[in-house]
Amino acid sequence: MHTNFFVLFTELAQRRGNAVPGVLELTSRHCSMGDEPNAELNPRLCSRQAANLIIISPTPKYKITTLSSSSFRGSSWNARSSSAIRCSLRRPEYIPNHIPDPKYVRVFDTTLRDGEQSPGATMTTKEKVDIARQLARLGVDIIEAGFPASSDADFQAVKLIAHEVGNNLDSSSDSDHVPVICGLSRCNKRDIERAWEAVKYAKKPRIHTFIATSEIHMKYKLKMTPDQVIDKARTMVAFARSLGCHDVEFSPEDAGRYIIYIYIYIYIHTYFTLLSCFHLISYCSLLFLYNRSDREFLYQILGEVIKAGATTLNIPDTVGYNLPTEFGQLIADIKANTPGIDNVIISTHCQNDLGLSTANTLAGARAGARQVEVTINGIGERAGNASLEEVVMALKCRGEQVLDGLYTGINTQHIIMASKMVEEFSGLRIQPHKAIVGANAFAHESGIHQVGVESDQLRGIFFSL
Amino acid sequence: MHTNFFVLFTELAQRRGNAVPGVLELTSRHCSMGDEPNAELNPRLCSRQAANLIIISPTPKYKITTLSSSSFRGSSWNARSSSAIRCSLRRPEYIPNHIPDPKYVRVFDTTLRDGEQSPGATMTTKEKVDIARQLARLGVDIIEAGFPASSDADFQAVKLIAHEVGNNLDSSSDSDHVPVICGLSRCNKRDIERAWEAVKYAKKPRIHTFIATSEIHMKYKLKMTPDQVIDKARTMVAFARSLGCHDVEFSPEDAGRYIIYIYIYIYIHTYFTLLSCFHLISYCSLLFLYNRSDREFLYQILGEVIKAGATTLNIPDTVGYNLPTEFGQLIADIKANTPGIDNVIISTHCQNDLGLSTANTLAGARAGARQVEVTINGIGERAGNASLEEVVMALKCRGEQVLDGLYTGINTQHIIMASKMVEEFSGLRIQPHKAIVGANAFAHESGIHQVGVESDQLRGIFFSL
Repeated sequence: MHTNFFVLFTELAQRRGNAVPGVLELTSRHCSMGDEPNAELNPRLCSRQAANLIIISPTPKYKITTLSSSSFRGSSWNARSSSAIRCSLRRPEYIPNHIPDPKYVRVFDTTLRDGEQSPGATMTTKEKVDIARQLARLGVDIIEAGFPASSDADFQAVKLIAHEVGNNLDSSSDSDHVPVICGLSRCNKRDIERAWEAVKYAKKPRIHTFIATSEIHMKYKLKMTPDQVIDKARTMVAFARSLGCHDVEFSPEDAGRYIIYIYIYIYIHTYFTLLSCFHLISYCSLLFLYNRSDREFLYQILGEVIKAGATTLNIPDTVGYNLPTEFGQLIADIKANTPGIDNVIISTHCQNDLGLSTANTLAGARAGARQVEVTINGIGERAGNASLEEVVMALKCRGEQVLDGLYTGINTQHIIMASKMVEEFSGLRIQPHKAIVGANAFAHESGIHQVGVESDQLRGIFFSL
Repeated sequence: MHTNFFVLFTELAQRRGNAVPGVLELTSRHCSMGDEPNAELNPRLCSRQAANLIIISPTPKYKITTLSSSSFRGSSWNARSSSAIRCSLRRPEYIPNHIPDPKYVRVFDTTLRDGEQSPGATMTTKEKVDIARQLARLGVDIIEAGFPASSDADFQAVKLIAHEVGNNLDSSSDSDHVPVICGLSRCNKRDIERAWEAVKYAKKPRIHTFIATSEIHMKYKLKMTPDQVIDKARTMVAFARSLGCHDVEFSPEDAGRYIIYIYIYIYIHTYFTLLSCFHLISYCSLLFLYNRSDREFLYQILGEVIKAGATTLNIPDTVGYNLPTEFGQLIADIKANTPGIDNVIISTHCQNDLGLSTANTLAGARAGARQVEVTINGIGERAGNASLEEVVMALKCRGEQVLDGLYTGINTQHIIMASKMVEEFSGLRIQPHKAIVGANAFAHESGIHQVGVESDQLRGIFFSL
């Protein structure tokens, strides 16, 4: 089979001397793909002395891992045989608490749970199943399908997704990838049992449980001491494991900051009638240091749930007010200070209140997180969550060069369809200038596309500042 | 006059021992405002031992700079007298190439120039003037009003804005702030003369000129050698100064990467019909190293235009593919390597193609940039520009704690109105979950606001992950 591949040269040829970077079309016979042999190269657009290639396959069937210099025999340029070529579909074996390739980042999509919490975004069961199927096609590693204990409808939806999508019963699927199906639950037996009842039909089920861990929240919301909270978390994680679930995610809900926000919000809203941006200042400013204060307790509770059998630890930036350097540092600190952390996966969950969720997620990944919690189109409460397409494309475009070689298993060709489905079903219209998936993301005002080919006809308004 | 102020405590009181952070209403007699004396404090909601206050004034008339410990005499808590309180309206004197306060970041709004380049976003002259008035009210330091040489309509709009907004002829204005009015021009005499003709009516006029500086762009678009480009830039900056303009901004347009993008775009578009996200990979991957290759040349041309009289140097991340660490490093490198850089202001201009423009802008500011180029709602070509509201609110919320004390002169109360005007006039509808200004940015699905006051009634779906 001669499938077309598209090869891009990411290293500036001029750095190496005398060449102009270019684009090259390959067919499958030019590359080493699984068991297929290398073959001659037939460049369509030439480039000399370029290296560090990235191959993007238009079909999801090829697992390209290397493009050796012998592939280029006979062509007018050379590639370094050491250049690792990553296909988007390389995906290590799934082991709940361990990823065989340290560079692989799991994508945990919570469009159906956190995204659906957006005001007005409630979806029907059929719509949820359709989206879950598209997420599986997209190559998402974990689908958080809902919160089974919250309602019967949610329970049924999660169960159906676990059964159908969690077992790859979709005959139209073009891959053999089966995503993990995850259900959210609070830290109590009823919730956890309900979640397990819903997800256990999946080939790879996961329970995601959370509890408040900030002092003010423990005191006023849970009415528990820190020791009681640790005990509760440990017991409930162990309980989830005892049900037969080998894949348990735990989130220390950082809701102390949140509840203060609400307090402030009400205060402002009642006494003044000021503007939204003003509210943001209120809670962000006020809540800043909660994060720090809870650190020691955080390490402790995380260490305890690891002992109890948690396989993934999710660190939320609940109110989306962290800056990338801070959030990266938080992940690095957790990695450095939590007992037993090397035996589990660290996850990020970044809200977008200051427009920094993508940057925070990437900073978290760079600091050691190997799961990123995201939603399609970045939907979610308030300003939403980190957006799958932005995080994935940033890792895809810059992972090799700037992000220590991190990569995901997402088949980016299915992003647009997933985006359109979520937009349609949730009713949350994305803005034309939404990064990656917006209608204008690749449109230009003034005939700019002509410029590339008509470089000597540069009249009119053309500036790219 | 007893004006209400709103005081937020940003330092976690519990860190200091025994207190809970809170909210406090002050009246003008409680604070040192300009020449008014300090007075007793009358807390509405109590907090003890909190410090590092932020004061937000509901009116723009007060220039609060400090709230000394004597303000708190008689109250049940103490503030450190060293705590600097910044009002959003503190604004150092305007000197084109120097900011008396090293912590002040100028906000350069290019909604009317770069934002208007968005497909379909063309505005009428009246709409542009209305937006410019709102930007002045907002406290924007520099308004890029248009590109006068591009059309007569643009020329007239810039001229009108320079005349009316650039001289504060708006009787409804509630401040004495007069923004700089800036016109864009390519690096040629006609453009520069035209820009000057339009902006010279403003009290503080600025010409912003740009030229391509990447090798491939110089070669194929300009058909000039690097030395010729440097000479052109130097001559044209000097020409702008010779017209009587004391405020000249220069941008090394990094369009080499851009033109390659276009080339790739056409290639993909013609040979395959793949998806947008796929295009992004193409140009991002390919163009990665242009940035680096041009560094030495960049330092050189920037050094030369400084000698010729440029007062601000704007560094664009034209295709929005930088990560915050990289862009911060680029600014730091320019600051470290460009001769004469200490005598000018460095500016950032970040596109949002990977959803990282806000983070990149903040990284630039942290690395030494003291002007940020932004647009209202983040509009602009493709995925738009860094969004004014996100950058400003991040600086406002976290400037003191995480961003070395950086602050802007924006009166954030006018953000929502500016956002609504731009949305209406440009026709670019923002998504409900747009950070800061989206309709849902402060909305919640499930009655969450009750939780703060009814902390023991925690039933229903409440999770804030």
